[in-house]
Amino acid sequence: MTRSAEVIAVGTELLLGEITNSNGQFFAQELAQLGIAHHFQSIVGDNPQRIHQVLEVACNRSNLLLITGGLGPTPDDLTTAALADFFNTPLVEHPDVLANIAAKHAHRGRPMPPGNAKQALLPVGAQVLPNPVGTAPGLIWSPRPNLLILTFPGVPAEMKAMWRATAVPYLRATGWVEGVIHSQVLRFWGVLEAALAETFAAELALANPTVAPYAGRGEVRLRITARAETLEAAQTLIDPVVQRIRATAGRDCYGSNDETLASVVGALLRERHETLAVAESCTGGGLGTMLTEVPGSSAYFLGGIVAYDNALKTNLLGVSPQTLSEFGAVSGPVAEVMAAGIRAAVKSTWALAITGIAGPAGGTPDKPVGLVYVGIAGPGVLEHQVLRLAGERGRTWIREVSACSALDRLRRHLLSSSSTVHPGNI
Amino acid sequence: MTRSAEVIAVGTELLLGEITNSNGQFFAQELAQLGIAHHFQSIVGDNPQRIHQVLEVACNRSNLLLITGGLGPTPDDLTTAALADFFNTPLVEHPDVLANIAAKHAHRGRPMPPGNAKQALLPVGAQVLPNPVGTAPGLIWSPRPNLLILTFPGVPAEMKAMWRATAVPYLRATGWVEGVIHSQVLRFWGVLEAALAETFAAELALANPTVAPYAGRGEVRLRITARAETLEAAQTLIDPVVQRIRATAGRDCYGSNDETLASVVGALLRERHETLAVAESCTGGGLGTMLTEVPGSSAYFLGGIVAYDNALKTNLLGVSPQTLSEFGAVSGPVAEVMAAGIRAAVKSTWALAITGIAGPAGGTPDKPVGLVYVGIAGPGVLEHQVLRLAGERGRTWIREVSACSALDRLRRHLLSSSSTVHPGNI
Repeated sequence: MTRSAEVIAVGTELLLGEITNSNGQFFAQELAQLGIAHHFQSIVGDNPQRIHQVLEVACNRSNLLLITGGLGPTPDDLTTAALADFFNTPLVEHPDVLANIAAKHAHRGRPMPPGNAKQALLPVGAQVLPNPVGTAPGLIWSPRPNLLILTFPGVPAEMKAMWRATAVPYLRATGWVEGVIHSQVLRFWGVLEAALAETFAAELALANPTVAPYAGRGEVRLRITARAETLEAAQTLIDPVVQRIRATAGRDCYGSNDETLASVVGALLRERHETLAVAESCTGGGLGTMLTEVPGSSAYFLGGIVAYDNALKTNLLGVSPQTLSEFGAVSGPVAEVMAAGIRAAVKSTWALAITGIAGPAGGTPDKPVGLVYVGIAGPGVLEHQVLRLAGERGRTWIREVSACSALDRLRRHLLSSSSTVHPGNI
Repeated sequence: MTRSAEVIAVGTELLLGEITNSNGQFFAQELAQLGIAHHFQSIVGDNPQRIHQVLEVACNRSNLLLITGGLGPTPDDLTTAALADFFNTPLVEHPDVLANIAAKHAHRGRPMPPGNAKQALLPVGAQVLPNPVGTAPGLIWSPRPNLLILTFPGVPAEMKAMWRATAVPYLRATGWVEGVIHSQVLRFWGVLEAALAETFAAELALANPTVAPYAGRGEVRLRITARAETLEAAQTLIDPVVQRIRATAGRDCYGSNDETLASVVGALLRERHETLAVAESCTGGGLGTMLTEVPGSSAYFLGGIVAYDNALKTNLLGVSPQTLSEFGAVSGPVAEVMAAGIRAAVKSTWALAITGIAGPAGGTPDKPVGLVYVGIAGPGVLEHQVLRLAGERGRTWIREVSACSALDRLRRHLLSSSSTVHPGNI
């Protein structure tokens, strides 16, 4: 029989949108790592009848229920009572738990509020799932064959401590953890999700590892996921597929897992002992921000100029008033002069410049919102690229995609050209 | 019959924990605002049988299903087909939708990949829920009496645009929205959540409107929420509470609703016909990015210099090597010279400078990670402020809070001083 887990978050505050269900994402990641199948998640309010409805459905399709929330001391915390009631099981007080809760309050020098006493009640037959951090323990309970229930408080720090200290070892000891599910993500820039899906149709049809595409903020990702006995065996299933995809995709695949365009460009510059400066107009500092999100970026990123106002383009970057009036601030020639200007000013190996119309205002039929020019200057290189981005995506999206596109342009240049400075000379 | 909504997110990436279900929280907040009851949320993978299981349950306990995800062009996007199949309804092609998708691709100068064609298929009887941002439209469908289904792509920006432009007006027009829940948010900088909760304990105990505190990224918010027959009646309940809070909080309350520190500073500068420039080190462009996130910021923001490397602090901002070696790059004197330097270089009314240690490396016992100096220069003003931020919060948090603190510093200066330039002189 295939076994699978289901995650249930109890809490009216979740249904009011007051907090994000980050616990759900945590359990999803943990279950994937442990190789426990996991097909459904639910959220339900602090209401006994509706908790029963959710339990009714969950017990009939899953064998491991991970339930968070509703274990606190206040009247609307009723998860344990609702569980006991649903399985027609009386509650029994655990004196050791009660003593532990009282001791935790005493330690903080205050009397135990009466509401806490109910946290020591568990259904007959349930074991305590100890809470090393807060007062509310959870439970480990198998109310019927082929069904295991674990409960946790909604507070993430308490839930995670209990999961790691007790729940995971318990699941391993009881045969729930067999093998692992392991993933690797490949990241692409400059290619559409649909085109990628077409190119890699054969890979997308694989069963183990599976390959699934995702799109977001101008980039596309492929997630390659294998199920195996061990992490090493899973990696062995993943490796040839990753190699095949990378070989076909070439430079469209810019990195994997947590790499970003900025970190990949940074690694290339660091390896070549080269430096970078930027001149930004419509991105207003966004390109510099991306580059400096990478720890250690001071090794290759010198800085730059945000020339939001045209006077700064002239005074600090050497864009002549004539060039500005002839081509307009948003133009290829201006992008090139901006790049050359900052490169000369700070003596960097490479320079990137961005000028464009991020909107919402400022567009014309000739130069609509989303028109962006990227300038690049480097050893023997001075050129520009035009981006025609979807104006309706909005200012934030246009600015982010412009900065990423500039980084991608430099990345492709760095991959095409050999290093200009011999490492020995540094 | 009481009617209630249920939110279903479709996507294996959610069950792998790759992304947070932020759409679920968005819908929770929106439904609360509209006064539509909402008792359950579910997550299910990209699997037709399991989508059917979730639909079976949801149709029998809710009358409005808001479904996100699985509308893309790839083979694992199968929400629409699964819905049609579940309700035994054939799919029909909408030529206008297909033409629209093709046009969006043509606009970007590339052919439409064949996978996109299926995005124009909807069940017979369903209306198109237009997507003004991306290619995938959703649907509005009542496959049986007392059941309404709306679908949205999983990409938050597309989902939100569709919800606001079409779904909410549709729900209003069809009687789903009776009365309103209306909120106003007050935003605070420079005050702790616990202190605010203590000051406004009486307001936090109100029943209608309710007042609830939230904290995030260095700022604290109070959300004042009223339930009433009309928007006007709700606003009438909210207004006196807002006025009372603002009167007590004074300048610690910097704005309301969608205002940001950058937009508030921008409005003050615009009103005074003054300009601003920035010099950034550890924030790497983050302050400029925040300022230019505000549409129309070119009216007062001139630009600035990202002096990540010390040579740029010297060459472009006039920080002498002597000052650097005497006080260190992360120091009050350097922050002041940076601010004065950029102000002189671009002739702005005001200038802000930031230099600090964002980590994770670079900290010393004397100058730990999280130590940041903000310099401010203006008419008759040259000073600095030291921030001692919690290093364990991490690089991104330190950089964001530093930029916000600099803006707040300028905001308080602008509120304290009268305008230096007579509007008539501009």
